[in-house]
Order: sequence, then C-alpha cells, then structure tokens
Amino acid sequence: MRYQLYYWPSIQGRGEFVRLALEEGGARYVDVAREPESAGGGVAALMSLLEDKALRRPPYAPPILEAGDLHIAQTAAILAYLGPKLKLVPRDEASRVWANQLQLTIADLVDEAHDTHHPIAGSLYYEQQKAAARKRAGHFREERVPKYLGYFERVLERNRGGRGYAVGNAVSYVDLSLFQVVAGLRYAFPKAMRRVERSCPRLVALHDRVERRQKIAAYLASARRIPFNEQGIFRRYPELDG
Amino acid sequence: MRYQLYYWPSIQGRGEFVRLALEEGGARYVDVAREPESAGGGVAALMSLLEDKALRRPPYAPPILEAGDLHIAQTAAILAYLGPKLKLVPRDEASRVWANQLQLTIADLVDEAHDTHHPIAGSLYYEQQKAAARKRAGHFREERVPKYLGYFERVLERNRGGRGYAVGNAVSYVDLSLFQVVAGLRYAFPKAMRRVERSCPRLVALHDRVERRQKIAAYLASARRIPFNEQGIFRRYPELDG
Repeated sequence: MRYQLYYWPSIQGRGEFVRLALEEGGARYVDVAREPESAGGGVAALMSLLEDKALRRPPYAPPILEAGDLHIAQTAAILAYLGPKLKLVPRDEASRVWANQLQLTIADLVDEAHDTHHPIAGSLYYEQQKAAARKRAGHFREERVPKYLGYFERVLERNRGGRGYAVGNAVSYVDLSLFQVVAGLRYAFPKAMRRVERSCPRLVALHDRVERRQKIAAYLASARRIPFNEQGIFRRYPELDG
Repeated sequence: MRYQLYYWPSIQGRGEFVRLALEEGGARYVDVAREPESAGGGVAALMSLLEDKALRRPPYAPPILEAGDLHIAQTAAILAYLGPKLKLVPRDEASRVWANQLQLTIADLVDEAHDTHHPIAGSLYYEQQKAAARKRAGHFREERVPKYLGYFERVLERNRGGRGYAVGNAVSYVDLSLFQVVAGLRYAFPKAMRRVERSCPRLVALHDRVERRQKIAAYLASARRIPFNEQGIFRRYPELDG
C-alpha cells in the first residue's frame, strides 16, 4: 500500500504524529502538500481534497490519510488504522484498545497545548488574545502538564516487562507520539519542562530511546522533518513559559 | 457481558454518549457511581477505580467502561469498542473507521462547547473566567457551531441510501451522539441554535428520529436520564448565548 498524507506543509502540527508512524513503520508515502504545486501538490491539493464534492465520506480537517479508497481524518483514527498495518501496536484487541485510549489522552494534551496560545478563537491572531493566553498557559504549565506527564510516567511504570515502552514490549505509535509531545513541550515551555521532567524519568528515557531509533533518527535529520515554529501547535512564546 | 460504567453521577457530560449507546444497544450495565455508596457505588467507587494502584493499564479520567478484565477510558475509544458488540456500527472496516472519525469530530465539538464556559482553566469557577468565556462563546456560536453542524449536515446528505443515518443505513453510535450534541447545544445556546438549525434540516430530522426510537424514548423518560444542568458540559448561561 502506498499512502498519501494530506497536511499543512509548513508545520509539524497534528500531522507529525502520522508522519512519525509512517516513518517508523517504513511505509511508502507521499506528503502531498509538500510536493510542488506543479506536480499536483501544495496547499492547493489539500484544499481540493477538502472541497471534493464527490467524496461520499468527506473528512472534516487535516491530517487526512488516503489509503486506497479510504480517506481517514482525525489523528487518533488514522493511527488506530495504521497501527496494525505498520506493526506499530500489538495484535490483540485489549492492547489495541489501550493504545487508542492513550492516543486520545495525548490528543487532549495536544489540544490544550494549542489553546495556550489560542484560548479565545482559532480565527484570531495570538496577539489578539495574549492576555487570556498568559492566564491559560499558566494553568497549563502548572497544573495540566504535570498531571498529564505524571499519568504517562505511571503508564510506563506499570507496564512491567515492557522494556520501557508504553504498550506491550515493543515500540508502538503511542511511544512515537509521546516522543513528539515531550519534544514539543520542550520547545514551547523549556523552563517549565526542566522542572516537570524531574518527576518523569521514564518518559524522558522513552523520548531519548525513540529519538535514537534508526528510522526516526534518519527522519529527524532529514529535510522531511519540519522544524518547530510559531505557526504550529507547540509555539515558543517566552511570555507563556512563566 | 455485563458492563460497568464509571462516570460522575450528577451530570450527563461525556458519559452520556456511552449511556445512550448502552441503552440503544440493550446492554446490561450498571451506572456504578449512581448506585448508593452503601452498595459499593457513589463517587467513592469512581475515585477508588481512578486511584487503584493494581491496574496495569490505568485510565486517565472518566468515563470509564469496565468490560470483563478491560478498563476503557476516552469516550470515542469506548464507543469504538462497544459499537460492533452492540451492533451499533456496520461490520466492515471502512465503516468502523468512518464512524470513529466522525465520533472524534463530535468529541472536538464537545471539547469546544466545554471551553465556552471554561476558556482559561477547568480548575477555576466559571465566575472567575466570565469575560473570556463571553468572547470564546461568541466565536463558538458564530463560527464553530455553524461549521461543525454544517459538516454533519453534509455527511448526512452524502450518505445516499442511508435513510437519514450518518453511517451505513441503520442507526449507529454516531447518530446517538449527534442527537446528544443537538440536544446539548439547544439547551446551552437556544437562541443561536434557532438560527443555525435552519441550515441543518437533515441533522434536526436525525435528532428527532433518534429521540423517538423505542429504547431511547424510554431512557429519556426514565430517571436514568440526568437533566441538563450547570455542572455539565452544555450549560445554559444566557450571557453566553449572545
């Protein structure tokens, strides 16, 4: 199967969780909107899919994975679909349900990270909601990040015999996503993360282990990895880091 | 299988999407925290599950479904698990993926509905974030609700031969959730909804069709259905309805 990923070409965003799975899984894929517009790529290709009136099952928003006849939107739905196919989740139902549950909790954390800079509306600029952003970011840093990361630390701790992985005893798409969350939070909230990480040694070790994996390391060193920036979900605004 | 649902006993909240599926699916289930504490119920039972150090796969937050040895948190994960077992989703993979994708988009809408009254922090009272709430609610009413409901209207329109249902041609857990979203938005934003509903005749018809289903009608008329209130996700604060 050759996959087509449709996502914004200038940010990691939610698409990055899918990119990491495709890379680690060794999938053949095209990151469509990063191809030149002259070759059928660019944002034009993404918009044209979103506006395609012929789709019986239209996606709501990117990321969107095209897999044969299927168009799958929603990051966690894409990963639940890809997981078994790319051998990035154990085969038994209980483990697949568990991985999905963890991924949805990661999605909640990612939503909240986004809302630190957009607490009022996605249609406004950050500069138009800075006062509320400072307040929301304070609660996110002091209450939410410790609660979420403490939870994932507990998940790793209780997975005895799991060799440090979150689900089963081999790498899964959940581990890749946890790597991305730690990397993103470090980028956006470096000061807060230095404090929080002291309580999450297993999660930090997992981040490092994923980062060193052969395919992931090659991906991170390539031009396919878009750098973090201030258009994505994890943004470095020092005033939001306390 | 006899299921145990763990959720806050005084609100519909996210648990309601699971309750509706259990009811329509004719499942045997106990809404644990609504049982008397003397019978092992109450919030104490919920807290004790959340704090159970013996769970190898600890849930992050309610709702939590106990199904045999499994504890499943995250509404969409619970519904993806229950759907096939309660015959509330077609059997083929493409339809299950599609239902999951729709449910996750519903979850995003529900998160945004929650944040209209809690745009800064869940740990603060509404009264401590009223100014930001007014602003966020305005964008939600004017931009987000029309966009989301317009999308679901399109989904229903494109499901030709679907007899008005969202997935396949029979009722699915997605339809039950769409019913709940319409009911919740009507409760919280009655003025805004009167305007938006004019553009969503199929969605309104789906709401009515679900409401009239035998098991759902019996549930809604029973004491098991908790009324909407101002502790839940959909809250009637007139100042947020414009």
